[in-house]
Amino acid sequence: MALIVQKYGGSSVVDAERIKSVARRVAATRDEGNRVVVVVSAMGDTTDELVNLAYQITEQPSERELDVLLSTGEIVSSTLLAMVLKSMGYDAISLTGAQAGIRTDATYSRARILKVESKRVVKELEKGNIVIVAGFQGITEEMDITTLGRGGSDTTAVALAASLGAEVCQIYTDVEGVYTANPRLVPEAQQLPEIGYEEMLELASYGAKVMHPRAVELGELFNIPILVASSFTDNPGTLIYGGASMEVRNKVRSIVYDLDVAKIMVVGVPDRPGIAAALFEPLAKANISVDTIVQNASINNITDLTFTVAKSDLDKAMEVVEPLARSIGARECVSDSKLSKVNIIGTGMQNTPGYAARMFGTLSEQGINIQLITTSEIRITCIIDEARVKDAVRALHRAFELDTEG
Amino acid sequence: MALIVQKYGGSSVVDAERIKSVARRVAATRDEGNRVVVVVSAMGDTTDELVNLAYQITEQPSERELDVLLSTGEIVSSTLLAMVLKSMGYDAISLTGAQAGIRTDATYSRARILKVESKRVVKELEKGNIVIVAGFQGITEEMDITTLGRGGSDTTAVALAASLGAEVCQIYTDVEGVYTANPRLVPEAQQLPEIGYEEMLELASYGAKVMHPRAVELGELFNIPILVASSFTDNPGTLIYGGASMEVRNKVRSIVYDLDVAKIMVVGVPDRPGIAAALFEPLAKANISVDTIVQNASINNITDLTFTVAKSDLDKAMEVVEPLARSIGARECVSDSKLSKVNIIGTGMQNTPGYAARMFGTLSEQGINIQLITTSEIRITCIIDEARVKDAVRALHRAFELDTEG
Repeated sequence: MALIVQKYGGSSVVDAERIKSVARRVAATRDEGNRVVVVVSAMGDTTDELVNLAYQITEQPSERELDVLLSTGEIVSSTLLAMVLKSMGYDAISLTGAQAGIRTDATYSRARILKVESKRVVKELEKGNIVIVAGFQGITEEMDITTLGRGGSDTTAVALAASLGAEVCQIYTDVEGVYTANPRLVPEAQQLPEIGYEEMLELASYGAKVMHPRAVELGELFNIPILVASSFTDNPGTLIYGGASMEVRNKVRSIVYDLDVAKIMVVGVPDRPGIAAALFEPLAKANISVDTIVQNASINNITDLTFTVAKSDLDKAMEVVEPLARSIGARECVSDSKLSKVNIIGTGMQNTPGYAARMFGTLSEQGINIQLITTSEIRITCIIDEARVKDAVRALHRAFELDTEG
Repeated sequence: MALIVQKYGGSSVVDAERIKSVARRVAATRDEGNRVVVVVSAMGDTTDELVNLAYQITEQPSERELDVLLSTGEIVSSTLLAMVLKSMGYDAISLTGAQAGIRTDATYSRARILKVESKRVVKELEKGNIVIVAGFQGITEEMDITTLGRGGSDTTAVALAASLGAEVCQIYTDVEGVYTANPRLVPEAQQLPEIGYEEMLELASYGAKVMHPRAVELGELFNIPILVASSFTDNPGTLIYGGASMEVRNKVRSIVYDLDVAKIMVVGVPDRPGIAAALFEPLAKANISVDTIVQNASINNITDLTFTVAKSDLDKAMEVVEPLARSIGARECVSDSKLSKVNIIGTGMQNTPGYAARMFGTLSEQGINIQLITTSEIRITCIIDEARVKDAVRALHRAFELDTEG
């Protein structure tokens, strides 16, 4: 009997009707003879509502308390799903993250899973239960409740799949799968039947909202095949697995973009050792993720340092950087928040020349100025004016012949 | 440093403003140099809303799942109160029932507390924290979440007070304390500054909504003084403690009534051993609490059995009783749901004649027919037509000179 872990996101359990519909999917999987573990997110906007409630109380809610508060959202939906399944005649039981043995570190609001003590889940499966686990949450060694941050429920699902040795982890969401580009932007975008972990990781990290990179990374680490599919349709979805990466395609797989990009330039910095550390350590301490970092070649021992942060972090980052820039003798500090990232991603690009040139050429033909460039082995990223992102994605989708992916 | 346990009910934490107001009360208690443990109920109607959500999902929600669902209500309010206190500069931490070590049996929806493993609470108190515990909930040996049923949060508070050796358990609610009668019915009703456990137990059991009898019983068992007071005013409230019972007063202490009474008469029952068991064991198995039971003197070995149940249980009880009545050869089975109970309560009545006579006489003067009578050492109960309850309470309040209680 195969073990399948399924995860249903917030839009899939938004109300009683949707929860019943999810229950029918779960029941069908069970009827096919599988053992089933289900991870659920909080219903619809519950998490946002709980956050609002906290902010009605205080402008700076304690992170520990906020985590306990938010964890209730997933507990509610897990119990409701278990109730429907039981009322349909299936054996089912809900478990909180703590009960399911999701052990995390104590970094509230973005805890990392340390291990899954799956004894209880295994026991309930052996009893014949469909096990519904509240996603997004765990418990520390001190028995304090934590939440896993963005992509938390996906991570719960993949971690459970890994610890239980599941055949597949199915992530049900409100999109049909992974596409060659955002279909809302590019009507010709094609759905990919499969994709490798590394490609998916780059996609998820660079703008595809389908899945959180943490969960993909975990899937890769434990070699758990992950199916991303819609809970609203019968579209077969996209399977993320190692095998898909092995097959080298001389192709770009997908164009993704990210509008959440702001740039800070520290101009006229004396180029001496320790300058980068002096800037980026305080930013890390202020809990600001710095993304792309570019340092121009030094001229007369004077250089420019440019880096990007999330738009929401820009003000906080400037507060940290401006005094530092003065203290290290930089000339000035400028920022730009009207930016976006456009990325082409595909293992097919590995060791194959010409992709970068074609990307830059395509953007140039569109009259789009490239502000920063970064690359990985399977990704090329250009930072451009956010107003031109649609044109850029469409032109690249055509240029890399993704309209015909089948 | 004294340890004080405070409990705030749902109406005391109905919204952000009320939670802030509760926080100020808690902070004031802390400022007076006390260590403080606070037990909170769910905000306002949260529990009802969660129940409704469950019934949208299924007509017969699993009791285990319902308990997990309902437990989230108290967790939410406990985190919010902890957040306010922290934002006010106080060290505070919320604990779920499980974290606070409230260990119960596995009787979902009305679990009994077996013990309190207060290690974590003690540790947090030693760290200087105000400890906020989610009321109404506990955890079984199997780590399954339970709820304690009616009066659950009061019970949590008194159990914690007992296990921690608290100086007093303060129950803050939306009434000012214990009265000689319901002040909404009897404007002359007087507030009692103090009352003994036993009297309070009878009051709580026989209609006073102030506190649940379970919590009073627990307080008596561990000799924890319980203050019942309003969280909306500075009225000093009513202190429930052993000493108050010791002092024998030749007085009725309070008149209470209960509208939730329905009567079932099994008429013409052959009077032989085992008849009562044949009726009441199946009722107990159907989880129906039978209250007053009266069996008339047998004539020609034929008797009548009358008993009362909660109005909400009447239909279910009749379903159980009717076939049984037939099988034991009873003539018929009749019910009446338009009843109420009126009780006079006071340790002063112990071993003192005349109270019953005065009660019956007063009701008779009002032309109120008494359907059933039961008594304890410190209580006399008459079951009467529910339409006359107001007249009965007012007349008894005058007859026992409670208008002048000081």
